[in-house]
Amino acid sequence: MINNSYYSQEVHGPYALHNIGNLELEEGGTIRECNLAYATFGKLNTAKDNAILIPTWYSGTNKIMEQVYIGQGRALDPDQYFIIVINQIGNGLSSSPHNTPPPGGMANFPHVRIGDDVRAQHKLVTEKFGLSSLALVVGGSMGAQQTYEWAVRYPDMVKRAAPIAGTAKNTVHDFLFTETLVDAMTSDPGFKGGWYASCADVREGLLRHAKMWAVMGWSTEFFQQHRHKTLGFSSMEDFIVNFMNGYFSVMDPNDLLCMAWKWQRGDVSRHTGGDLRAALSRIKAQPFVMPLSTDMFFPPADCQAEWRLIPDAEFHPIETIDGHLALFGADPNALAQLDKHLKDLLAAKV
Amino acid sequence: MINNSYYSQEVHGPYALHNIGNLELEEGGTIRECNLAYATFGKLNTAKDNAILIPTWYSGTNKIMEQVYIGQGRALDPDQYFIIVINQIGNGLSSSPHNTPPPGGMANFPHVRIGDDVRAQHKLVTEKFGLSSLALVVGGSMGAQQTYEWAVRYPDMVKRAAPIAGTAKNTVHDFLFTETLVDAMTSDPGFKGGWYASCADVREGLLRHAKMWAVMGWSTEFFQQHRHKTLGFSSMEDFIVNFMNGYFSVMDPNDLLCMAWKWQRGDVSRHTGGDLRAALSRIKAQPFVMPLSTDMFFPPADCQAEWRLIPDAEFHPIETIDGHLALFGADPNALAQLDKHLKDLLAAKV
Repeated sequence: MINNSYYSQEVHGPYALHNIGNLELEEGGTIRECNLAYATFGKLNTAKDNAILIPTWYSGTNKIMEQVYIGQGRALDPDQYFIIVINQIGNGLSSSPHNTPPPGGMANFPHVRIGDDVRAQHKLVTEKFGLSSLALVVGGSMGAQQTYEWAVRYPDMVKRAAPIAGTAKNTVHDFLFTETLVDAMTSDPGFKGGWYASCADVREGLLRHAKMWAVMGWSTEFFQQHRHKTLGFSSMEDFIVNFMNGYFSVMDPNDLLCMAWKWQRGDVSRHTGGDLRAALSRIKAQPFVMPLSTDMFFPPADCQAEWRLIPDAEFHPIETIDGHLALFGADPNALAQLDKHLKDLLAAKV
Repeated sequence: MINNSYYSQEVHGPYALHNIGNLELEEGGTIRECNLAYATFGKLNTAKDNAILIPTWYSGTNKIMEQVYIGQGRALDPDQYFIIVINQIGNGLSSSPHNTPPPGGMANFPHVRIGDDVRAQHKLVTEKFGLSSLALVVGGSMGAQQTYEWAVRYPDMVKRAAPIAGTAKNTVHDFLFTETLVDAMTSDPGFKGGWYASCADVREGLLRHAKMWAVMGWSTEFFQQHRHKTLGFSSMEDFIVNFMNGYFSVMDPNDLLCMAWKWQRGDVSRHTGGDLRAALSRIKAQPFVMPLSTDMFFPPADCQAEWRLIPDAEFHPIETIDGHLALFGADPNALAQLDKHLKDLLAAKV
């Protein structure tokens, strides 16, 4: 275990922990006494049909979802809905390599799949809240991967699905991009195969990882139009040091690697022997597929190709120059488009 | 010095060497007895007005320019033109870190700028061939950077300019992408600050460098449409190992780093105190600005922004899904577009 004050109630709270017991994983491992960290907003109605589930993205927690996406008057309005944000396994708040006691933690933490997360989340929302339907599952990036998994795995439970900037089956290009993120950290001699004494030992690897996120996470237009300066950074160097690296350098490398491994292998067609069309045909939810127009690794064309395989899905690309990291919410216009589509989706009869 | 059979007449020849003497560099260093490796095709006419100069890109040599761009019936036709391909400093054939004797080689090789290359090339074509005009300067990527430098530095000499997939002033995004390439190599413990005994010591770093080229060099559409399979590779892994890494792993890390440093700092506005418009206004050549439609680091929008600053330039984006590495010539349709535009440009009265 590694003591890391970043993963705390002070930074990401309030959140609750729910122990779902031992979670046997698709790849054969087991997470013992698996904890899911979650936060709720609003109240569950008596019909129990106003629940919205939000899974988190790579590096994300319940806190950013709350700050950027949830609010009175917004589509995800706690006055109308019971909103549950569940932190994905490995994100540092739920069971993760850094917070799992020996011998199962650190580099010994088992491989987790998107499907494992969704089964764990299903256990939480059924056992803890007695839910039998979800009015909406919505998530960005790895949250979109989980959204697709939810809609395919539990088609009768998910009424609406909004995968934002993510795919149902990861592409080989995206897999490779993520591999360069993995390499950035694991190649640091201080990583020591995952048995570092402190995240600071992997400082150089985390910095390289942050730089690669800066290359692929935003867009060339973002920098051409000096958006990084608009956001308060005097130069690219300042942006790298004080934003990108500031953001990632406090995180645990093994936690990031747990999520990266999962991200690389997101694939709902595992349910149907590799037939993606057959898997997506299982979806009974009303889906809105929403890529971000300048996304460099979950590009609109890849999301559109999947959208064509989903019966009655709607395709609503979001115009933005913030690339994939428009998810961070710095482009109010992108958020306005997302809110409008989510409101339309929530208003849709299903 | 490092013995490296990749940089040889057997692999890249035939080429000639021209010693331009000591080259004093913008950054303060000196390359002693600087050799430029070059290859010529066709004959110089008596008016000496049919010369075409082709500078090379990062990792490129005269050989690929010959194989992909030069030929009878092509725009760059040796039956009509006297074509000179000059290998850039640091590319392994011209003076480079790996082939410079101690103490000036390896990590001691001085920093070179695009402007140094162009001054050296100017010396070669004037001293060796007595040229006072170039019918065309054409190059891709770093070759485009040199093309812009030629047109701005020697406006009376350059009649036509065809910068393909490159910029006159590098962007902060492209600078950062290149930095991740640099980091990939220099972070390898085997690199030893540039004092490795053999390129094989930097094998892991070169592999990471190759992967990052695969992420950014092609395009997401390229992989979505399985172009890597069409080109004869059974999977992404096969493509990485047998194409990308096969291509880069034989190269010298210090040579690549010399070029990368230069690439990052390409900027014709150094001639005009940072005023890019003023620098580009010096151009008297007829320029055709030709980005590649899916290029991820010299994207059309960045090239277009510069094109707007050049009097009477034409903008001809090339449609391709091969991204930046359409330069390699695997998309015949992209080559056909390039050839058509180059023929039109060469036919233009100037």
